[in-house]
Amino acid sequence: VSSKLPGVGTTIFTVMSALAQEHGAINLAQGFPDFASSQRLSELVAHYMRQGYNQYAPMAGLPLLRQRIAEKIDGLYGVKIDPDQEITITAGATQGIFTAIGALVNPGDEVIIFEPAYDSYRPSIELFGGITKSFELNAPDYSIDWNQLRRLISMKTRMIIINTPQNPTGKIFKPADMQALEKLVGGTDIILLSDEVYEHLVYDGHEHESILRYPGLRNQAVAVYSFGKTFHTTGWKVGYCIAPPNLTAEFRKVHQFNVFSVNTPVQYGLADFLEDPHEYLGLGTFFTHKRDIFLDAIEGSRFRPLLSEGSYFQLCDYSEISTEPDVDFCRRLTQDYGVAAIPLSVFYHSKRDDKIIRFCFAKKEETLELAGKRLREI
Amino acid sequence: VSSKLPGVGTTIFTVMSALAQEHGAINLAQGFPDFASSQRLSELVAHYMRQGYNQYAPMAGLPLLRQRIAEKIDGLYGVKIDPDQEITITAGATQGIFTAIGALVNPGDEVIIFEPAYDSYRPSIELFGGITKSFELNAPDYSIDWNQLRRLISMKTRMIIINTPQNPTGKIFKPADMQALEKLVGGTDIILLSDEVYEHLVYDGHEHESILRYPGLRNQAVAVYSFGKTFHTTGWKVGYCIAPPNLTAEFRKVHQFNVFSVNTPVQYGLADFLEDPHEYLGLGTFFTHKRDIFLDAIEGSRFRPLLSEGSYFQLCDYSEISTEPDVDFCRRLTQDYGVAAIPLSVFYHSKRDDKIIRFCFAKKEETLELAGKRLREI
Ligand SMILES: CSCCC(=O)C(=O)O
Ligand SMILES: CSCCC(=O)C(=O)O
Repeated sequence: VSSKLPGVGTTIFTVMSALAQEHGAINLAQGFPDFASSQRLSELVAHYMRQGYNQYAPMAGLPLLRQRIAEKIDGLYGVKIDPDQEITITAGATQGIFTAIGALVNPGDEVIIFEPAYDSYRPSIELFGGITKSFELNAPDYSIDWNQLRRLISMKTRMIIINTPQNPTGKIFKPADMQALEKLVGGTDIILLSDEVYEHLVYDGHEHESILRYPGLRNQAVAVYSFGKTFHTTGWKVGYCIAPPNLTAEFRKVHQFNVFSVNTPVQYGLADFLEDPHEYLGLGTFFTHKRDIFLDAIEGSRFRPLLSEGSYFQLCDYSEISTEPDVDFCRRLTQDYGVAAIPLSVFYHSKRDDKIIRFCFAKKEETLELAGKRLREI
Repeated sequence: VSSKLPGVGTTIFTVMSALAQEHGAINLAQGFPDFASSQRLSELVAHYMRQGYNQYAPMAGLPLLRQRIAEKIDGLYGVKIDPDQEITITAGATQGIFTAIGALVNPGDEVIIFEPAYDSYRPSIELFGGITKSFELNAPDYSIDWNQLRRLISMKTRMIIINTPQNPTGKIFKPADMQALEKLVGGTDIILLSDEVYEHLVYDGHEHESILRYPGLRNQAVAVYSFGKTFHTTGWKVGYCIAPPNLTAEFRKVHQFNVFSVNTPVQYGLADFLEDPHEYLGLGTFFTHKRDIFLDAIEGSRFRPLLSEGSYFQLCDYSEISTEPDVDFCRRLTQDYGVAAIPLSVFYHSKRDDKIIRFCFAKKEETLELAGKRLREI
């Protein structure tokens, strides 16, 4: 058969996780925690399964869960969201991104993404006939040159995908970035797809610049969130999408024929769990600590960190160690040194290789210590 | 915003379930059981959550679950399937259908569907730029005129979607249908998407004609299955897709950027549960009994059943009761008589109205008895 995505192989996350397993390496590649999620949350889900809440949830998601999400957003960002018309529960944030692109990008439409970028954006855009316009962040600080970006916008620009905290760089949008974005496209018919799955993972006194906080952008924004990243349950595959009623209506048209609905007992469990804001309010501190343990653990190594401001991820420059391509270096790091990471070049369409790799620090203290020990030996 | 699916509203299942709830009606509309699923299965899932199996499953699905599915298929249909290259776990069968269409249908491609048809096929095809060619089954026996169908096939035909046991008619493909299909398209480059979610729900001594049993069709077939329909857990949203390696490769390219992976502890629980074939081998008998209770319960009413051969569904002709459009009749049935059903016309692009409605009999005996009592009063 002819392929609609001829350039697409298996995602780097699958490849590196498999390689890590094969070699018994510490997996700091794919972004997921190696520590336990809440037993109370699991027991809540088990309770609802036992009570028989095992049939289809409503297509848009459980009303109580949507209500609790609206309360959470109000508490965090001081914004009122209508749970009926503006929130849809998704089978993970990736499904939210895919569905938003599917619902809103037409063949020939241009979509701007910031690279290095999460690997699902480009193929999702292209599957629906869109044209990806890559805009590279300024290396090595990964700031955005908004004047340059302006030149990429055309009559065909349908969507801009933003991502803060950013995967893979660990950079966050500052208020000045949001203001520049608003000045550039606020009030136009360009849709902003805002990937905010790491909303709680922001460090060093910064705040998360949710697009929901910007009235001048919110009416044209689809924001996606992840319970997996927030509650350390990446394998449960539940997230949500927030968008104004007209965009939510289009989103749901596709959602209902894509997955139709999302795991019911998990939704009930999450609704109860969300009642207590402490389940997520401490996450910034929790992950700052993990980042710092990792930074301490690689001190004295020849890896040079590019300080993470948010997300699960810490970039490191390895140019003092080797001039190998980053893909080869990551392979060797896994095989010979027992630590798996992700080469940054795979997140660039240009495959630009700055000798930088991405480590995930959402790991137990002992995992990070042991990885550090190995990395210091290189 | 302009809509990519301007003709699409909320699915009939959502509409009727909401109306049933509003009026406290017995919901024989949306297809889901009102009886309990296995406690053992729920406890297995709870066990794996508790043990910490809460992070991403492999993209294609848990290897052990795929292995068990291969064993199940071998046992049922005597066919060897490669779990690594031919099975992908999906977030329900609907996601499998959507993903298969997304991966394999190009703009301008024609896709043939049999109507009345499950409502997700057409919008999924159109979202990806395909052209839906409806072929109406012969009313009132819903047989297929294969000679007529031949005329619908053109150079542009990329895919034919078949569905046995069929939703909404409750008809099943007979060996002669499969042979006719093979004669018509076997060995061509037309892809067959085979929706077999009701594979175990076949009655009156018939056997399920899985496309996997037909070597002359199997190499061009993508078959989708549902654990929700099989294990009475429609709200868990787990199914799977079987296709030869070249089609599976394309399927997974889209799957990995759509949902990436499926609920991990549920996959572990299902893998254990599948070990015992008795968990599904008795389903034909179990649901024959439910169908027969329903048929008995409406005996003496003015509804005329069109005997279901398989699936959850029983069609009934109400022309002795009313000449109203079926949509209005279903609304009145829900509001005034407390029984919700689905009008058959919504499954036809032509909106053809034969005064037939669909009842779901996947319900407790007492539910079916009470519904019958109400239906006898009309
Ligand atoms: C969906 S697997 C990838 C997980 C992740 O977000 C990452 O590692 O970047
Ligand atoms: C996905 S909701 C519809 C359930 C179903 O299969 C039906 O009622 O036909």
